[in-house]
Amino acid sequence: MNHAPRLRRLRRQMKHQGIDSLLVTHLPDVRYLCGFTGSNAFLAITASRAAMFTDGRYIAQAHQETKSARVVIAAKSARDEACHWLASSGVSHCAFDPETTTVADLAHYRKALPSGKRGFFQPLAEPLVRNLRLIKDEDELRLMKQAARCGVELFHELLPQLQPGMRETAVAALLEHSARARGAEGMSFETIVASGPRSALPHGRATAQRLPRKGFLTLDFGVILNGYCSDMTRTVFLGQPTRRERFTYDSVREAQQAAVEAVKPGVSCGEVDEAARSVLRKAGLAEYFTHSTGHGVGLEIHEAPRIAADQSQVLLPGMVVTIEPGVYIAGHFGVRIEDMVVVTRDGGQVLTPASTGWTQL
Amino acid sequence: MNHAPRLRRLRRQMKHQGIDSLLVTHLPDVRYLCGFTGSNAFLAITASRAAMFTDGRYIAQAHQETKSARVVIAAKSARDEACHWLASSGVSHCAFDPETTTVADLAHYRKALPSGKRGFFQPLAEPLVRNLRLIKDEDELRLMKQAARCGVELFHELLPQLQPGMRETAVAALLEHSARARGAEGMSFETIVASGPRSALPHGRATAQRLPRKGFLTLDFGVILNGYCSDMTRTVFLGQPTRRERFTYDSVREAQQAAVEAVKPGVSCGEVDEAARSVLRKAGLAEYFTHSTGHGVGLEIHEAPRIAADQSQVLLPGMVVTIEPGVYIAGHFGVRIEDMVVVTRDGGQVLTPASTGWTQL
Repeated sequence: MNHAPRLRRLRRQMKHQGIDSLLVTHLPDVRYLCGFTGSNAFLAITASRAAMFTDGRYIAQAHQETKSARVVIAAKSARDEACHWLASSGVSHCAFDPETTTVADLAHYRKALPSGKRGFFQPLAEPLVRNLRLIKDEDELRLMKQAARCGVELFHELLPQLQPGMRETAVAALLEHSARARGAEGMSFETIVASGPRSALPHGRATAQRLPRKGFLTLDFGVILNGYCSDMTRTVFLGQPTRRERFTYDSVREAQQAAVEAVKPGVSCGEVDEAARSVLRKAGLAEYFTHSTGHGVGLEIHEAPRIAADQSQVLLPGMVVTIEPGVYIAGHFGVRIEDMVVVTRDGGQVLTPASTGWTQL
Repeated sequence: MNHAPRLRRLRRQMKHQGIDSLLVTHLPDVRYLCGFTGSNAFLAITASRAAMFTDGRYIAQAHQETKSARVVIAAKSARDEACHWLASSGVSHCAFDPETTTVADLAHYRKALPSGKRGFFQPLAEPLVRNLRLIKDEDELRLMKQAARCGVELFHELLPQLQPGMRETAVAALLEHSARARGAEGMSFETIVASGPRSALPHGRATAQRLPRKGFLTLDFGVILNGYCSDMTRTVFLGQPTRRERFTYDSVREAQQAAVEAVKPGVSCGEVDEAARSVLRKAGLAEYFTHSTGHGVGLEIHEAPRIAADQSQVLLPGMVVTIEPGVYIAGHFGVRIEDMVVVTRDGGQVLTPASTGWTQL
């Protein structure tokens, strides 16, 4: 992973916006910029220097992982030492990301400096690092493809093992064990295994409930592989469906395909959302599609952009988003189908190419 | 789980501090107060009313889980609707927790109200909900004991399966699969499996490295069971140790026992830290103990209090803390031993009673 170009791009943006220093504290941002993966990190960046402050738990790891920034192991507070370093580095101000800095953090930063420096820390007008992370670079796309492929393999391995009577948690355990066996660091969120009427819960985490003889089973899961998250959902059927169940599935599938096909550079996130929603509207199911169509994914499971009705953000090559419409009929059943899609130069490429066709067990 | 007494205690604190309303947004705090476990929640509390705002993904789940608060499914923004509800509820101010509210969140809250209401949102002087959560109630202690016991069982099940040549990730996979089989929702942090020289990394997450024929193996892991986190560490040895390795282990064990024995009501966290540190100082190993002795644990893996040198916080019955001194000799080996300990009326009770004796495989 080559971190130097990322830091260069960031500094170009900083210069462009008249920002002479930046304190990065959101851990995925720190990892993105300098590679460090520890749980305590303050990355201080000026036009010419960068220093990553952490604590004594990470002496060896910080030196091993950190690129393009000097490592400082703080004797007491990594936060305070980063603030002092910035204040004495000859810059007039330091920017911070208001989206990932708490009100208390900011008070601590200010307290670490002499009282004459009250105005030293200023919120960014734009989330500079998040904006960089919106467009995945080649290293990232390679890793994201691997993570997505891992998810698809898990699903294919799981399918023949599914049968009525298994507990939802046992299904989750199978997925998660296979993920580890394929080298994943863990799952990117708590695995959703929602069977029978529970499939009507958009976020139905695995419970002790047993898979029914007849009904939908929604599997929504992701791995973290080399730091990057995958995310996919498939809904399969056990037994014989009713016509309504089959119609609902086919409608969601059509909506999902329409949104996947809508993905291309220049299209707004709102338009992609509408592509899915309009199919469900025609099918008379729009009122049961109670969430947005998708979200960005990368080092974090939920990143920008949001694929939702009110979003004017335009898709650009290198963005990776999920497309996951669903229909949830409370007390009865639900269906969701989700793929990860990378925006290419002239369209979109599905990174999770498991069939979305009707699957009956 | 009885949430009403928690809300009563909170309201008593609010009244005591002259706070007429509170906006709770930190998800573990929301879960603690009203039971809702979704990923989007704004819990608004006045002296007589409480409302939990979430979105359309959680319609069924919110009504099922939420106790002691009215559920509101927001049409657009749960955040904005919570702000409006508070502003029109007849209170003069609303408090928020500055530790868990970002600078951007606060700007959004203020923007949601008419400009005359700029001073409506005020930071809490004390973290009211976190202070309540510091002392676990009976329901919580029952669940934490179950989670801790689950961790011990995993360790005992794992031990006979360990052998040289296994990958660290395979060890993690075994632990995690057993955790799921015992009903855990997941792991409370990325499992640490650090073997051979990697044991010198305090946070050595499992890698593809194979367990050596000779050397330490540190296992630091926790489950989430019914929402509550367990946390324990054991370091075992493969093959025959050198005298230095054995001496180091015995010293860490003695330090850990000393700190566990120091746990009782009225003792400060700093004193508990010193109990461990002084043993290692006498053994000439203090410089290799590069982190603090422990931390609180509960719905989150890291909670208050911190068991560290500078902490004057006094232990009180119902607190649950980890005691986890370690010694890390970079490039060579490391040892850490960790238990969860609940502060009782007259001392401390170890919740993770797996032997800390020298274990050679």
